[in-house]
Amino acid sequence: MDKGKSIGIGLMGLGVVGGGVAKVLADKAEILAGQAGIPLVLKRVLVRELGKQRPVSLKLGCLVTESGEIINDPEIDIVVEVMGGEYPAAEYIREALIRGKHVVTANKEVMAKQGLELLTLAEEHGVELRYEASVGGGIPLIAPFQQDLIANNILAIHAIINGTTNYILTQMAQGGLDFSAALEQAQELGYAEADPSNDVEGMDAAYKLAILATLAFRIQVKPEDVYCEGISRLKACDFRYAHELGYVIKLLAIAKGSDSSIEVRVHPTFIPENIMLAKVDGVYNAVQVEGDLMGKVIFYGEGAGTSPTSSAVVADIMAVAQNIRRGATSSPRLQLGEVKTIKSMLDIETRYYLRLNVADQSGVLAQISKALGDCDISISSVIQKEADPMAKTAELVIMTHPARERAVQQALEEVGQLPVVKEISNFVRVEV
Amino acid sequence: MDKGKSIGIGLMGLGVVGGGVAKVLADKAEILAGQAGIPLVLKRVLVRELGKQRPVSLKLGCLVTESGEIINDPEIDIVVEVMGGEYPAAEYIREALIRGKHVVTANKEVMAKQGLELLTLAEEHGVELRYEASVGGGIPLIAPFQQDLIANNILAIHAIINGTTNYILTQMAQGGLDFSAALEQAQELGYAEADPSNDVEGMDAAYKLAILATLAFRIQVKPEDVYCEGISRLKACDFRYAHELGYVIKLLAIAKGSDSSIEVRVHPTFIPENIMLAKVDGVYNAVQVEGDLMGKVIFYGEGAGTSPTSSAVVADIMAVAQNIRRGATSSPRLQLGEVKTIKSMLDIETRYYLRLNVADQSGVLAQISKALGDCDISISSVIQKEADPMAKTAELVIMTHPARERAVQQALEEVGQLPVVKEISNFVRVEV
Repeated sequence: MDKGKSIGIGLMGLGVVGGGVAKVLADKAEILAGQAGIPLVLKRVLVRELGKQRPVSLKLGCLVTESGEIINDPEIDIVVEVMGGEYPAAEYIREALIRGKHVVTANKEVMAKQGLELLTLAEEHGVELRYEASVGGGIPLIAPFQQDLIANNILAIHAIINGTTNYILTQMAQGGLDFSAALEQAQELGYAEADPSNDVEGMDAAYKLAILATLAFRIQVKPEDVYCEGISRLKACDFRYAHELGYVIKLLAIAKGSDSSIEVRVHPTFIPENIMLAKVDGVYNAVQVEGDLMGKVIFYGEGAGTSPTSSAVVADIMAVAQNIRRGATSSPRLQLGEVKTIKSMLDIETRYYLRLNVADQSGVLAQISKALGDCDISISSVIQKEADPMAKTAELVIMTHPARERAVQQALEEVGQLPVVKEISNFVRVEV
Repeated sequence: MDKGKSIGIGLMGLGVVGGGVAKVLADKAEILAGQAGIPLVLKRVLVRELGKQRPVSLKLGCLVTESGEIINDPEIDIVVEVMGGEYPAAEYIREALIRGKHVVTANKEVMAKQGLELLTLAEEHGVELRYEASVGGGIPLIAPFQQDLIANNILAIHAIINGTTNYILTQMAQGGLDFSAALEQAQELGYAEADPSNDVEGMDAAYKLAILATLAFRIQVKPEDVYCEGISRLKACDFRYAHELGYVIKLLAIAKGSDSSIEVRVHPTFIPENIMLAKVDGVYNAVQVEGDLMGKVIFYGEGAGTSPTSSAVVADIMAVAQNIRRGATSSPRLQLGEVKTIKSMLDIETRYYLRLNVADQSGVLAQISKALGDCDISISSVIQKEADPMAKTAELVIMTHPARERAVQQALEEVGQLPVVKEISNFVRVEV
């Protein structure tokens, strides 16, 4: 590799993020070279087709359509993968590492599913694999976990890491919109995709949580380890009740560690309206990390978008470039710790919000609280509202004290069989 | 230096922070060694007197009273300075760097006043000087500026970086306390020192802002460059008016950059009550950094205290240790950029809150708005309250549109001379 005069960069993908990265490398060439101590030169860009209009002007001959033209180019030191999707991105990253290229990626799916193998591969080949842009856009998260928080035993992560759902939930809370109306609005504004299921069902957040939990707890957490529940079951009335009870509803990505196990889950969550995370609205992201030494630290900012993501990708490129210049590249180590099990969802313990449709007659609450009490679940507060005078039904909202999920599931089954209970309308976990 | 078997650490200071660092190094020895790839051994601790009771148990013979016993010890690789105060700490750091020791410091005063010279000295001697704990306790700030945010042109910093004053202001806002009562409470709880002037007058925040602005704008910002105004002039009524107008009052450390100049200032500030910074209460700190790519990013957490500060100090120690193990130490470069001037306070432009005591008679507001208008200052809103029916005076609160400070100062001089104006009671800058 030519370490003397410049750092050669091969960019894979020229979409929203790739175009942004190419633009920053061009517009800020001089200042980045000054900071890195060596110029960064974009040598090749992998695209699907050559003829298309591009939002950024690139030198003729720079565009290629075969990954090999980047991976096998001896002038390229750093491969920047911003294609998205697991395949072929993962294969390209793998080949690049084996060929002795440093890799910077923004790919949460690849890092969540194959991160540990790829990091090990990078170490074996003496190259760096960096992925700051894979979680939280322009918010520094990976580097802090790898370095700044390292003295801490991480106790918990509570994160709002999907801007699409946070925008939808904010609109439902503030505008009183129903889920489908809020989703439509998000799609019109470009905050949600035509097929929004990856965001709305929580998979996107689960990928990101798997990446963060792996770093935080030093065990391999795979996306399928993360319990995942989306936001589509929430109704406008849940937000009204939440407000009455002093809560807001967020799609939280939660990871908690104990000596022998960790729990990792993504689901709609009631959180007290006066805590910092409750104030994170719209497309913003925030990750709260609790450590035994530092207490609670929150990282907040724009979790997506061309410019914020480019900020993270270019920071990674600069880190690699500075290390190349110093002759001291090496991936930050991901040293796994003691083996811990992933806790079953049935074993978590938290508080619960229950919304039931019940017969509007006396003794109903007594029957329901007995059924809950039989499963060792005690009630902390109740709201009862007339729902439908014609049908003689009422809406009953119950907040429980902390209980084990297994007991709550069992109690709900029993409650659902009571003749006075028409429907268990919703069931949302509460974090304090 | 013995790089083979362990990293030798010399600790200077065994007070609140030093005791915490020693405890973490002892309690977490095994896990830190695993992460660093090499054991960290606390070899010597500099104290004022040997006989005292210590909150942490140390090996016999570990305590020394002469700095030379650390600086000249060939077994010590990293000197950790947590004594505080400019002298003799700065001299010890200087000597350690010259002797080829890496240095980790938590000393904001030294880094604000002499940081650039010391970083240059470190580079000349091929050693690292790290200072994450100097600003924001356990909140990662220095490392993000040095690495994660590097692709950005930093536009502005708005920071709550003094926990003592933020606690006092929170008590004044929420408890309706006067300044002196809130200060007393903070002192009782150990959040304010017996002599609170360094915190209350804003110097502590000015030190920290000088450190951050130097990193953010790549020019040398000294503490004396920072305009500094404390919180003692605020009255309980200012908080009431702020609330009526939809604002909260925070001691903000503000830095803004333009092409040719920067402004750096610490003063009480009205900020809209619905922005994230407005929700930062009690002893918590938050630093909002705005970059051209990443937009606004906020770092939030505990800005002081034994454990959070130890978290930052030990992270720095670990970073140096990992670099020693890799054989690749080098201070992150502080590459200065183009020369920029520090803007005079008279040239800043912002909005203003004015509180006046005026004669309770007709035509007063007309006279005052004319005087302001003559200086090109226009009024955005007004609150008038009866202050003292006996004295026939009223309290007049004015929010202006953006104006230049020079014009506001001049206008206030003229307004103060109007016979209907008894007193210009307060004057607070507003940031949006």
